[in-house]
Amino acid sequence: MNIKASVVGAAGFAGIELVRLLVRHPDFQLVSVTSDALAGTPVAQAYPAFAGVTDLAFRPLDESAFDGCDVAFLAVPHTASLGLTPGLVARGISVIDLSADFRLKDPAVFEAWYKTPHTAPGLLAQAAFGLPELAGDELARAAADRAAGKAVVVACAGCYPTATSLAAAPALRGGLVAESGIVVADAVSGVTGAGKKATERTHFCFADENLEAYGVGAHRHTPEIEQILGIPGRLAFTPHLAPLNRGLLSTVTLPLSPDVPLPRVEELVERYEAFYADAPFVQVLPAGVLPRTASVAGTNHAHVGVGVVGAARAIVAVGAIDNLGKGAAGQAVQCANAVFGLPPTCGLQAVAVPV
Amino acid sequence: MNIKASVVGAAGFAGIELVRLLVRHPDFQLVSVTSDALAGTPVAQAYPAFAGVTDLAFRPLDESAFDGCDVAFLAVPHTASLGLTPGLVARGISVIDLSADFRLKDPAVFEAWYKTPHTAPGLLAQAAFGLPELAGDELARAAADRAAGKAVVVACAGCYPTATSLAAAPALRGGLVAESGIVVADAVSGVTGAGKKATERTHFCFADENLEAYGVGAHRHTPEIEQILGIPGRLAFTPHLAPLNRGLLSTVTLPLSPDVPLPRVEELVERYEAFYADAPFVQVLPAGVLPRTASVAGTNHAHVGVGVVGAARAIVAVGAIDNLGKGAAGQAVQCANAVFGLPPTCGLQAVAVPV
Amino acid sequence: MNIKASVVGAAGFAGIELVRLLVRHPDFQLVSVTSDALAGTPVAQAYPAFAGVTDLAFRPLDESAFDGCDVAFLAVPHTASLGLTPGLVARGISVIDLSADFRLKDPAVFEAWYKTPHTAPGLLAQAAFGLPELAGDELARAAADRAAGKAVVVACAGCYPTATSLAAAPALRGGLVAESGIVVADAVSGVTGAGKKATERTHFCFADENLEAYGVGAHRHTPEIEQILGIPGRLAFTPHLAPLNRGLLSTVTLPLSPDVPLPRVEELVERYEAFYADAPFVQVLPAGVLPRTASVAGTNHAHVGVGVVGAARAIVAVGAIDNLGKGAAGQAVQCANAVFGLPPTCGLQAVAVPV
Amino acid sequence: MNIKASVVGAAGFAGIELVRLLVRHPDFQLVSVTSDALAGTPVAQAYPAFAGVTDLAFRPLDESAFDGCDVAFLAVPHTASLGLTPGLVARGISVIDLSADFRLKDPAVFEAWYKTPHTAPGLLAQAAFGLPELAGDELARAAADRAAGKAVVVACAGCYPTATSLAAAPALRGGLVAESGIVVADAVSGVTGAGKKATERTHFCFADENLEAYGVGAHRHTPEIEQILGIPGRLAFTPHLAPLNRGLLSTVTLPLSPDVPLPRVEELVERYEAFYADAPFVQVLPAGVLPRTASVAGTNHAHVGVGVVGAARAIVAVGAIDNLGKGAAGQAVQCANAVFGLPPTCGLQAVAVPV
Repeated sequence: MNIKASVVGAAGFAGIELVRLLVRHPDFQLVSVTSDALAGTPVAQAYPAFAGVTDLAFRPLDESAFDGCDVAFLAVPHTASLGLTPGLVARGISVIDLSADFRLKDPAVFEAWYKTPHTAPGLLAQAAFGLPELAGDELARAAADRAAGKAVVVACAGCYPTATSLAAAPALRGGLVAESGIVVADAVSGVTGAGKKATERTHFCFADENLEAYGVGAHRHTPEIEQILGIPGRLAFTPHLAPLNRGLLSTVTLPLSPDVPLPRVEELVERYEAFYADAPFVQVLPAGVLPRTASVAGTNHAHVGVGVVGAARAIVAVGAIDNLGKGAAGQAVQCANAVFGLPPTCGLQAVAVPV
Repeated sequence: MNIKASVVGAAGFAGIELVRLLVRHPDFQLVSVTSDALAGTPVAQAYPAFAGVTDLAFRPLDESAFDGCDVAFLAVPHTASLGLTPGLVARGISVIDLSADFRLKDPAVFEAWYKTPHTAPGLLAQAAFGLPELAGDELARAAADRAAGKAVVVACAGCYPTATSLAAAPALRGGLVAESGIVVADAVSGVTGAGKKATERTHFCFADENLEAYGVGAHRHTPEIEQILGIPGRLAFTPHLAPLNRGLLSTVTLPLSPDVPLPRVEELVERYEAFYADAPFVQVLPAGVLPRTASVAGTNHAHVGVGVVGAARAIVAVGAIDNLGKGAAGQAVQCANAVFGLPPTCGLQAVAVPV
Repeated sequence: MNIKASVVGAAGFAGIELVRLLVRHPDFQLVSVTSDALAGTPVAQAYPAFAGVTDLAFRPLDESAFDGCDVAFLAVPHTASLGLTPGLVARGISVIDLSADFRLKDPAVFEAWYKTPHTAPGLLAQAAFGLPELAGDELARAAADRAAGKAVVVACAGCYPTATSLAAAPALRGGLVAESGIVVADAVSGVTGAGKKATERTHFCFADENLEAYGVGAHRHTPEIEQILGIPGRLAFTPHLAPLNRGLLSTVTLPLSPDVPLPRVEELVERYEAFYADAPFVQVLPAGVLPRTASVAGTNHAHVGVGVVGAARAIVAVGAIDNLGKGAAGQAVQCANAVFGLPPTCGLQAVAVPV
Repeated sequence: MNIKASVVGAAGFAGIELVRLLVRHPDFQLVSVTSDALAGTPVAQAYPAFAGVTDLAFRPLDESAFDGCDVAFLAVPHTASLGLTPGLVARGISVIDLSADFRLKDPAVFEAWYKTPHTAPGLLAQAAFGLPELAGDELARAAADRAAGKAVVVACAGCYPTATSLAAAPALRGGLVAESGIVVADAVSGVTGAGKKATERTHFCFADENLEAYGVGAHRHTPEIEQILGIPGRLAFTPHLAPLNRGLLSTVTLPLSPDVPLPRVEELVERYEAFYADAPFVQVLPAGVLPRTASVAGTNHAHVGVGVVGAARAIVAVGAIDNLGKGAAGQAVQCANAVFGLPPTCGLQAVAVPV
């Protein structure tokens, strides 16, 4: 196939990772990459990793940026997608949205967390949630719509929600978790998660050799995780920053249902393996083995491991992803593959650098 | 004063940090440092940071290592202290023990977690727990005993227990926490926490750019934290490893008591400040500020910050320490200061390298 | 094509990177991977990055390891290849050797630096040097031999020699450098260059936040660089270690020939670009831009930048590679591509993770 | 003593390190710290490492900032000191200048490299060069002047010049080096050397896992090194950046004099030890041992190691410092100690964190 694609916000970290994936994708052809800040600059000048790889240059974001495109990947800040998506869909261009604008099904929840009204509730109602392993039905419907000639919108899951939900969903959906009680997700991200903007927080000398928590009780991924997992008002989510580039580890502690006998870890692993039997990008690790983010860095894979705390009757599930891979650009390509009827692993076969 | 001190296990990470503190301490005089593996090697050869600083050489661990000593700091693996401490006390030498052997008050709990009987229950009953801010009465008693001429034993708290308990104790002791429900502590340590032994896990190329969880439900600091906080069987503790040398961050999520209205963060901060008003090494950060381990690296300080998750009715308390400082060697010196009647900050006035 | 390949020493850092490249290579089929230490262990167990990617397990190194193989990649310590290669060639299996055993053309030089006699001088005389951009004629000859049915041997260049020679060769071969005077190469490697063995030197806590030089005047890559560049006895080469996983930067300072007017940097860049016009893996950076190892990490690319020191009349040429990519496994695959008549970039199209 | 001190530019990396040293210095009393950007902000708010340590707040830089001061430390960009120093000296306040403004003895050289005329040539002629081990006579003269009641100016050596010159001086001053031929210094710095300003270059995600060279033939420390070492027009100096916070390693390759027989390394070490016999902050490492920056991080120490390249007849000398310690703030305090007649190690007794 030769599906023409554009990346909007291509100079940011998620955007440039999309460029990296799409220049090597066998079925998508990258025809434009936009960046207002770097308009006119060759990609290979801003990111020398592309020297000898592509002659594309960043261009301004205007209507002509999408001429001839079948699909636009939006790696933009929240609310920017609200401005762009309706016009793109009207032009018949499908949208793979990496922003948060179409993730929360309830416009009121969006408004409560993002402090701005949702201006496209009609598209929101139609948008598919982009987390193939947990919302595959929505993507299947979008694929059918697109096959029928409709432009579709996919709202790709955020990085913390992806790792957290992949770790927690099999336990929750499998009826192992108590119906009340706090679910705790403590997640740690590499610094690419803080974005490309040069700030004191992203300065090497402040981020290096440092661990910190941030956004207690206030991170906007909270309602997204609660929505995916079906646990409204029960999540205590605390994100952290650690000194590495790429990688996100989410450790989720869930209260075991009083109706369930304490499972052995091996039983949990079996349940998880069954849950992800058809998911090529999710690997459930053997009992006693917990995931390492380095094993998925630069890829679209997610590793999940589980444990049990007997006395406290808790399940601990740990998910590891690359925040820019399965947590952003990889997932976007996986969703685009689904929408365009390609095999899921198409263009996503990288193996992590093991060392 | 001129208190003569020995460090046992001085070549390990906690041991050499003790050496670093004691060679500059105004009142302790370091007279011997033992390491069976490096016996005969000058400290400055094994650790060039000591070039021009000390002429001490590591020596074997035998009885003469303690000749003339007033105090022995034991930076040894668990059970080794069980072997050494009774003999030292019999010789009138006080013991500041960094191992786990005298931390758990109940010998049965020790046996359950360490899979070996406790061979010195008499000394265990007398040992003071070494976490001055939370068990100051035990240290005061030990100081009085020592002033009366008795050799005493201090069992310094472990690294995870120190950060976790300093973060959680004011909420728990202040009656803010529900009397049932899981308390979750997800803590992240730098690689010095994994010890000096060269293994695949501590190899730079496996630890770098990686996050991982380990020891779910099985880490031996679990009963220690439960003991300090008085929450037997309620703790889900998951330790993690991140790519930095020194630093430990513990994020504790506690269910708010149903009897307590949801506090504002500013109220929590005030309660915490009151709790630590007399603790020179614990700084409670203002509302909205969370601790960074870099701010305490190389020191005996602990920084604590708090937040609230409204919908889930949870308190989140975060503690940051240097795992080798307040989490090991610094705390040991602080305990020794207490036992020998010195001001708490004596020899512990380092300010963290801010960048 | 379906060329059957074996990797010997596959559990080491260069070996596992070969596995990573070969499992995704369209024309090579990986049929066996050997590791005496890990024999019987699935690759995905030792390196979880391969979970869901390959079911291969490490196997012992014995004769049957090569049954049906067309080519063996040897990622082994020096002298081990001397033991293996003659037998493999006798069986008609071509050898891509990542060790040093067949690199030095003069057996006496080998003996002087490796303190052991060269036991296969006949094969040594036939072996092609594996640095395609600078010894392409040797590889072309090997390819012709192999096309004629002969098993051939390629001695892949080392990591420091590759970066150093790619940086220096255009200046030296272009007649810009004085015929006497010291050529200085100061090169810095990531810690994967120190190997997988867990030692104090590779311990995270000793390598992190540290810079060091090593092997002054004694590193065995010295004669190899002198041989490639044709500067016997003129090289002062000092390797260094820095706290990163993968990446090698070599800064070469060359005395300008007294017969040559001081070049502008732009002129130098033009000469370098012409020199590498047909080399798909070498990118010469524009005047004023110097290479960053991050831009080539995980790939087979080399970036080269140049500068001039006017007063001292020196050319400074800087080469950046991934020590395990173009410095080891990538280069080996590039050489294998050449020997088997494949396009040079076959299986080597990875783009570096730009952030 | 109670010498009243001010730090100008205290919010930058060198400035805050000066604050860290001076708040614990027994004889200097820090009375004001200036930062125009952070005026009004408590030091402990901007740098939480100072929580519980000092109540000082940054204040604007105006005349009253120096009321009652005996000495001002200027951690300012070049040319700013030219503006401040004459007025301070006129007020009788001695200046310890960390900028480059008074380092180059020849105003024409200053103008050539800094592209601005030197506006205080009179003070320049009187200023002492602040590198005690190599220009002790200038500091002794300044100390005598100050003891006689004069305000004096010390131009502290830069970070690269300090490490490079301490490594090279004993060989050059000892007559071992050829009188012509290029001297090559390749030096690597941690990212604090790039300053506190948040830029793409100092962004964690670009600096991490990366090595790069910069400023070939153009770095302004070149004439400073040539001046200290007395090798005008002979230096090829290339600085590099590596992913660590603090630390600077300079590897200097010097052509051996044709009149000198090739020395054994042990002989070189002896000469170096004799050269630095009275220098408490310079440790010469034994033959075969090369310096590690981690061993001096956070301190005012410099470690020097030497080697020989026989065939090329080169001496390789390696110097390691903390770029903010002996390379900036530590050296400034050492110079201030000298000028005010204090012992050299006063307030500078920190031992590096060995791990």
